[in-house]
Amino acid sequence: MKGTQALEIEPEKNGSYRLGRQVIIDVIEQLCSSESRQVLSHRSDHDIPMPSVRTLSDIMDSLRSILFPGYFGMAELKIETMQYHVGSTLDSVFRLLSEQILRGMWFRETDCSSASESYCVERSQLLTLQFIQSLPNIRRLLSTDVQAAFDGDPAVDNQGEIIFCYPSIRALTNYRVAHELYKLGIPLIPRIITEIAHSETGIDIHPGAEIGEYFFMDHGTGIVIGETSIIGNHVRIYQGVTLGAKSFPLDGNGFPIKKIPRHPIVQDNVTIYSGATILGRIIIGHGSEIGGNVWVDHDVQPGSKIVQGKAEEKIFRGGGEGI
Amino acid sequence: MKGTQALEIEPEKNGSYRLGRQVIIDVIEQLCSSESRQVLSHRSDHDIPMPSVRTLSDIMDSLRSILFPGYFGMAELKIETMQYHVGSTLDSVFRLLSEQILRGMWFRETDCSSASESYCVERSQLLTLQFIQSLPNIRRLLSTDVQAAFDGDPAVDNQGEIIFCYPSIRALTNYRVAHELYKLGIPLIPRIITEIAHSETGIDIHPGAEIGEYFFMDHGTGIVIGETSIIGNHVRIYQGVTLGAKSFPLDGNGFPIKKIPRHPIVQDNVTIYSGATILGRIIIGHGSEIGGNVWVDHDVQPGSKIVQGKAEEKIFRGGGEGI
Amino acid sequence: MKGTQALEIEPEKNGSYRLGRQVIIDVIEQLCSSESRQVLSHRSDHDIPMPSVRTLSDIMDSLRSILFPGYFGMAELKIETMQYHVGSTLDSVFRLLSEQILRGMWFRETDCSSASESYCVERSQLLTLQFIQSLPNIRRLLSTDVQAAFDGDPAVDNQGEIIFCYPSIRALTNYRVAHELYKLGIPLIPRIITEIAHSETGIDIHPGAEIGEYFFMDHGTGIVIGETSIIGNHVRIYQGVTLGAKSFPLDGNGFPIKKIPRHPIVQDNVTIYSGATILGRIIIGHGSEIGGNVWVDHDVQPGSKIVQGKAEEKIFRGGGEGI
Amino acid sequence: MKGTQALEIEPEKNGSYRLGRQVIIDVIEQLCSSESRQVLSHRSDHDIPMPSVRTLSDIMDSLRSILFPGYFGMAELKIETMQYHVGSTLDSVFRLLSEQILRGMWFRETDCSSASESYCVERSQLLTLQFIQSLPNIRRLLSTDVQAAFDGDPAVDNQGEIIFCYPSIRALTNYRVAHELYKLGIPLIPRIITEIAHSETGIDIHPGAEIGEYFFMDHGTGIVIGETSIIGNHVRIYQGVTLGAKSFPLDGNGFPIKKIPRHPIVQDNVTIYSGATILGRIIIGHGSEIGGNVWVDHDVQPGSKIVQGKAEEKIFRGGGEGI
Amino acid sequence: MKGTQALEIEPEKNGSYRLGRQVIIDVIEQLCSSESRQVLSHRSDHDIPMPSVRTLSDIMDSLRSILFPGYFGMAELKIETMQYHVGSTLDSVFRLLSEQILRGMWFRETDCSSASESYCVERSQLLTLQFIQSLPNIRRLLSTDVQAAFDGDPAVDNQGEIIFCYPSIRALTNYRVAHELYKLGIPLIPRIITEIAHSETGIDIHPGAEIGEYFFMDHGTGIVIGETSIIGNHVRIYQGVTLGAKSFPLDGNGFPIKKIPRHPIVQDNVTIYSGATILGRIIIGHGSEIGGNVWVDHDVQPGSKIVQGKAEEKIFRGGGEGI
Amino acid sequence: MKGTQALEIEPEKNGSYRLGRQVIIDVIEQLCSSESRQVLSHRSDHDIPMPSVRTLSDIMDSLRSILFPGYFGMAELKIETMQYHVGSTLDSVFRLLSEQILRGMWFRETDCSSASESYCVERSQLLTLQFIQSLPNIRRLLSTDVQAAFDGDPAVDNQGEIIFCYPSIRALTNYRVAHELYKLGIPLIPRIITEIAHSETGIDIHPGAEIGEYFFMDHGTGIVIGETSIIGNHVRIYQGVTLGAKSFPLDGNGFPIKKIPRHPIVQDNVTIYSGATILGRIIIGHGSEIGGNVWVDHDVQPGSKIVQGKAEEKIFRGGGEGI
Repeated sequence: MKGTQALEIEPEKNGSYRLGRQVIIDVIEQLCSSESRQVLSHRSDHDIPMPSVRTLSDIMDSLRSILFPGYFGMAELKIETMQYHVGSTLDSVFRLLSEQILRGMWFRETDCSSASESYCVERSQLLTLQFIQSLPNIRRLLSTDVQAAFDGDPAVDNQGEIIFCYPSIRALTNYRVAHELYKLGIPLIPRIITEIAHSETGIDIHPGAEIGEYFFMDHGTGIVIGETSIIGNHVRIYQGVTLGAKSFPLDGNGFPIKKIPRHPIVQDNVTIYSGATILGRIIIGHGSEIGGNVWVDHDVQPGSKIVQGKAEEKIFRGGGEGI
Repeated sequence: MKGTQALEIEPEKNGSYRLGRQVIIDVIEQLCSSESRQVLSHRSDHDIPMPSVRTLSDIMDSLRSILFPGYFGMAELKIETMQYHVGSTLDSVFRLLSEQILRGMWFRETDCSSASESYCVERSQLLTLQFIQSLPNIRRLLSTDVQAAFDGDPAVDNQGEIIFCYPSIRALTNYRVAHELYKLGIPLIPRIITEIAHSETGIDIHPGAEIGEYFFMDHGTGIVIGETSIIGNHVRIYQGVTLGAKSFPLDGNGFPIKKIPRHPIVQDNVTIYSGATILGRIIIGHGSEIGGNVWVDHDVQPGSKIVQGKAEEKIFRGGGEGI
Repeated sequence: MKGTQALEIEPEKNGSYRLGRQVIIDVIEQLCSSESRQVLSHRSDHDIPMPSVRTLSDIMDSLRSILFPGYFGMAELKIETMQYHVGSTLDSVFRLLSEQILRGMWFRETDCSSASESYCVERSQLLTLQFIQSLPNIRRLLSTDVQAAFDGDPAVDNQGEIIFCYPSIRALTNYRVAHELYKLGIPLIPRIITEIAHSETGIDIHPGAEIGEYFFMDHGTGIVIGETSIIGNHVRIYQGVTLGAKSFPLDGNGFPIKKIPRHPIVQDNVTIYSGATILGRIIIGHGSEIGGNVWVDHDVQPGSKIVQGKAEEKIFRGGGEGI
Repeated sequence: MKGTQALEIEPEKNGSYRLGRQVIIDVIEQLCSSESRQVLSHRSDHDIPMPSVRTLSDIMDSLRSILFPGYFGMAELKIETMQYHVGSTLDSVFRLLSEQILRGMWFRETDCSSASESYCVERSQLLTLQFIQSLPNIRRLLSTDVQAAFDGDPAVDNQGEIIFCYPSIRALTNYRVAHELYKLGIPLIPRIITEIAHSETGIDIHPGAEIGEYFFMDHGTGIVIGETSIIGNHVRIYQGVTLGAKSFPLDGNGFPIKKIPRHPIVQDNVTIYSGATILGRIIIGHGSEIGGNVWVDHDVQPGSKIVQGKAEEKIFRGGGEGI
Repeated sequence: MKGTQALEIEPEKNGSYRLGRQVIIDVIEQLCSSESRQVLSHRSDHDIPMPSVRTLSDIMDSLRSILFPGYFGMAELKIETMQYHVGSTLDSVFRLLSEQILRGMWFRETDCSSASESYCVERSQLLTLQFIQSLPNIRRLLSTDVQAAFDGDPAVDNQGEIIFCYPSIRALTNYRVAHELYKLGIPLIPRIITEIAHSETGIDIHPGAEIGEYFFMDHGTGIVIGETSIIGNHVRIYQGVTLGAKSFPLDGNGFPIKKIPRHPIVQDNVTIYSGATILGRIIIGHGSEIGGNVWVDHDVQPGSKIVQGKAEEKIFRGGGEGI
Repeated sequence: MKGTQALEIEPEKNGSYRLGRQVIIDVIEQLCSSESRQVLSHRSDHDIPMPSVRTLSDIMDSLRSILFPGYFGMAELKIETMQYHVGSTLDSVFRLLSEQILRGMWFRETDCSSASESYCVERSQLLTLQFIQSLPNIRRLLSTDVQAAFDGDPAVDNQGEIIFCYPSIRALTNYRVAHELYKLGIPLIPRIITEIAHSETGIDIHPGAEIGEYFFMDHGTGIVIGETSIIGNHVRIYQGVTLGAKSFPLDGNGFPIKKIPRHPIVQDNVTIYSGATILGRIIIGHGSEIGGNVWVDHDVQPGSKIVQGKAEEKIFRGGGEGI
């Protein structure tokens, strides 16, 4: 029954206010009843709080300032003193990120509940160190992505503009960081990091995807790259492109079987134009071009070109009738 | 005439600065002239300020913390003390939301200008109480949406990850709250609430749409669900899907007639793949599947499957010529 | 070699922590080495900091409050005192924006490095004044955009709702401001301003595009309007529409030649439905309608109607097999 | 009985945590019981909130920026555009201060409970306007105070330093504003404003005191000027000076009779050195000097000089024995 | 040798900047050398951070809102829903304060280093619970302090003004909270809490002092109440009063012996006027009055009245000669 | 004439509001008239803004974190990575402080108006570097002050508590920094820095004073140390002590002659008890003790002990009559 029908309060002068408070108290009771709360409340046997989206967003800002020195948050950086800024920022990242990873491990309780608490703390720090070791390589990869954007976009003046403004680089920075964390088996945190970029750029890359060098996403809004996608080098895709799953097998209970390969493999030097939808564990052969708005669910030979079926074209007949 | 041509200031040393101030003063005068300001300024006979997008965003954060206890903003929540946190948050929501609803009523002045001021205040409080009574049902509906996401996405580990990260749940929480406010006839506020989610997730659901249980939007960016859409239970749609109006009749003055049914009816158990466009007051029969990127503007029988026309496929011939 | 393989740290009690610090120190050294940092660091010979995205965002908020008096940030504005609020806000904008323009000029060092420092300061102030002179015209254009939204959307109650909530107006305000700055030859700043709107609305309009009066983008997410696009008056486009480049000629070194006309010309009274992709320096003749999801890469005669090729329709055969 | 004795919780592993929650719940109940809460809770029949110390502090910052243009909060103010900044700030002050005055009137419920609500609103606005009319005179008085500080302190370079740094000017600005509000009969607000300065500077001037022109308080910490004090022109006092009440008559119920004259009258050209205590409704005649640390509770003839009784002086005999 | 002499940098155009960086690098090295840092750096073997002054300040704000419902931070509190606000605030205080107590225990490492980590956590929670049990009594004591202020100050209108504005109540709230924590043996935290009030009010009460009911400090700035002071009921003191130690015995190494009784005992119904200095473990007998600015270092019989020695009074002889 | 008498507005329903706006407009005009604004407005021929108190407060926080590593703002600092944190903080201090020093130089226009702009910038950077070179010595001095507090206060547990909580150390840190800047001839900035500490602690030390090693101020509120004071080593003073000027010679125009020695010289090992007032260019010989509340304006031989004249003592005679 809908709440809007049940309420009997009349907007009379006397008593309505106190009655109003009673309504609130009743709803509080309902919301705290065990039936209502059980589905959507976060129950735990421990006191480790949830990961903090705000802190992870700050960590990404710090990493961005380390990866692209001088562009983000380190005003007037000089080579002579760069090490101090990079060093203090990285040391803070170590502390903050290992705490978030610890929270992520407690969130998926299988990671921690059977072990000692201090083992979990040490493990989270070790994983963070391993991630930190991958930063030089992440920077190297991102420098190829910046180059690819510069080569692929006639609208841009210089590489600095790409680093500073382009959603593609922002989303790839989050993705490449998240992907390293994903490979280390860290739960929840990688997904939060890519969702932060998703919200900012409209580009949704699952941290599990594998993406090669020199990757460029022009404009970017609406791009989806699924968990088991594999993308080669020198690939370029445009806004609204989906690399998705076509279907997924169910287990005996009718639930989808998790984590099996179900997204496309896109080989080197492929370009996919805006709005194209590529579905299933298919291979888009190297050097192919996929035209805008097409739907592809089968393998494409290397060097192919796929375009949309011919549209009908008609003379307009006017009026408010629309299309 | 463009301002860039009119300016005669030379970057000379003497006098240019004072001249610059004069330019500013002239523009202030132009912007405050009655002709210039009349179209875009908010004129009112009263002192009630505009609704605050920031406050409504905070209210949504509070409601999210109530609906999903332990996930958002109530760190280390325990069952024994849950009632205090839910209670104090809900009491604050009552106060803040009734104020915003009052502002919304004054914004559309027809709601308040003919009545006494205190009637408006009482009415806004009554409407808020009616909304609050719907919260247990909103939570119940959202729990079905979480279940639908879990059943429909092989990439996810556990329900907590869905609640915490998924744009679908974030957008549906705003929508389901806004829809209750919309049904109560409250102006402006519901639309602001769904636009907040639109900006965060790229999912644009009009608060007037009716959406059943177990609804899931995978990835979500670019989804549009129009004002008079009706969606059944167990429906799943992907990124970039539009449920839109095909055309709309004009009144005698050439203006669109407002609020008449003009968006699709999607029956139970329908799946609509990425980028599909469904237009007009048509019915997509239960159990149908609509393929990616197709354009549908006529009724679809139950159990149908619609796919895009065959794309042309060509061998690539190299060069900078492009597609 | 991946960092995750190289790390030899064992989670033992003794020494691991100090070893961990050594890992961090090593990575700092790598990141500060000249090979690693050279590609992605911002090198400059001067001390002028990068433009500030946050300040530019604040400037846009100030301009919005000036262009739409009473809607944003000037609570309870009255006609009698409007000039003070508009005046003080505009004077602050002059100061803040000329500073940002100066930073933009130093960013693209060709603008400043060969001139004296004080010349650059004066030039940035002059450019800001020229921009300020265009504000009355920007407001006039935006008033036509609001009118177009009101005429074109049956879901809206009143113009105030459009100004306050619609992503189309938010994106166009940033675009129309950025376009004036672009015409003045200011580097970087215009693009940052349109990218701010891109992130908030999912609408990506390049500041170089030329857009006429009475422009309306319904829903908006995923719209892309390229740098050399030309759009007439009374044009309406829907979510997911691309006005893009089809291909671009390379120079002798294999790099794209910058800034040549390569995006569509859309004449007056054209409507383009959701997801359509219009590519290349083609002309969409006045009064045409482009249907959803189509791909157009050739001229369209005035008064034409383009729709997608007929989709196949099949009866559904059940199962988990998918589409 | 002290809580520290009553608690029986043992820090055992099992059950202690839940028991802890029970302790909290019991204390909540006690604190909400009618006996406990009645003395110190703010009970009211209305919904008008308490005045906001933070808002009043912001109002004082705004007034400071108006009274001393260019020193506080209006960077790079120019004469040509000064009116816009002063105007918009003052218009905001009108709105914010009249709201706070309204809250103050509701706090002392005798001001509002017997009248209509809209009468109270109008009255608060009228009082605010009357206060605003006194601003030019407040500025004139403060300019004499700045001059007095410059004439009386050899440590200062220029008047700007006094305006920008001196606690005397900060405290007098708050006092002179609060005194105007006090004269208008506004409850609570004047006292909050002088207590803000008390906390910042250690100078405690009651808003009821009357203080002439050219007043200077050097260093200032610990100065107390009581409610019915009257201070002439060209008076200078040092840190730690008290102008206090010596005793006060009680009424029939043993309570102090409020508001009767009980603090000193200090005539023109008097100087009072650090730590002096002047008590009771006495007159310090013009041109007198009161030495440091003295205690005066009787009239002092014009032109007098009061110094402390001769201190004993002894030869020190060493050791940890102290004085 | 002073740094100002050592520097050889000339403000020449070439090289000075790089030389400047070298200066900074040298100073960094000096500051990190083991000799320089060892005295003033916080060395620890653990990772528990220092207590947070900001968090403790927030905790005091929360406790103030609980102790004085409706005055601070719980706008428009109603009796019907008071329990939710008090409950959620107190539950947060439990969590935040036990964390700060834990940090305090680690700061004085003797408290924790020899025990297991989880013992420390449990102990900090137990101590917090014991503190929470004392809150009803703290409120009761504060209600007597408010009454004493009302009875003792003719300048005040109503009790609400005292609670909301008076430094005496603000300082006593922090003191009474800190004193309970002090009695529980908690290190560091109590002192931080009273120093927060010291900074805000100029009133310095050591958390170790014992203070009875109905205590009032008028104006308050400069009051000092030492660690082992004992104050009875119905005592009133004015600004600048010191209850201090006269001297303290040294141990064999010449260091002061800590924590022995060395401050005054002030019995019931004593009044001490502004600037008086009471030193040593003496007794001020009940009902006595100590006049302003006097220095007392011996026992005072009950019912005594102490006033300052007669000041000399002279006729002023003019000129700039001063006093 | 007072504004409160001039206002004729009646709280009538019609027209009063518009009339109210007119009042505001009139006051704006008065406040912007050249007669009114000229005394208190900051006039300048340049665009360099005033120094920022907030930025200088942040700089002091940064310096505190450098001088006392691990106590303020560098959580969980480790020796291995200390150099990064100290280094990045110091590099930021260099940038921020040289900007503030530049602003201070422009404030006292004699410093900059006759030189070239870039000379001023270089000079401000040079002065900042010279200040930075003095930091190791400032730390050394502060370590003696911490030791003096530990030796002199039986109420303290450990040195960490002194560094973290004691107003004496906070005020001395600001003073010792400000004194170095004062010695470099930098205008305004040193005074702002000591006034920040004055507001926080009630301790007012002029940056020009010279203070030796091992200085301790117990409690501190109300202490004043004048510009030309000279204080030796191992001096201890208590709350409310003044080291002031007794009188100052006037120049031919009747203005005080600035900057001549006029405050006391306090030699080594002197103790001054609470509330004592020491005035004029006198010498307090080494090893002396000055008792509480005394007034000293003549030289004191080494090893002397000064105490207050004997107070009268009377039996109390009851009643509301007071003292």
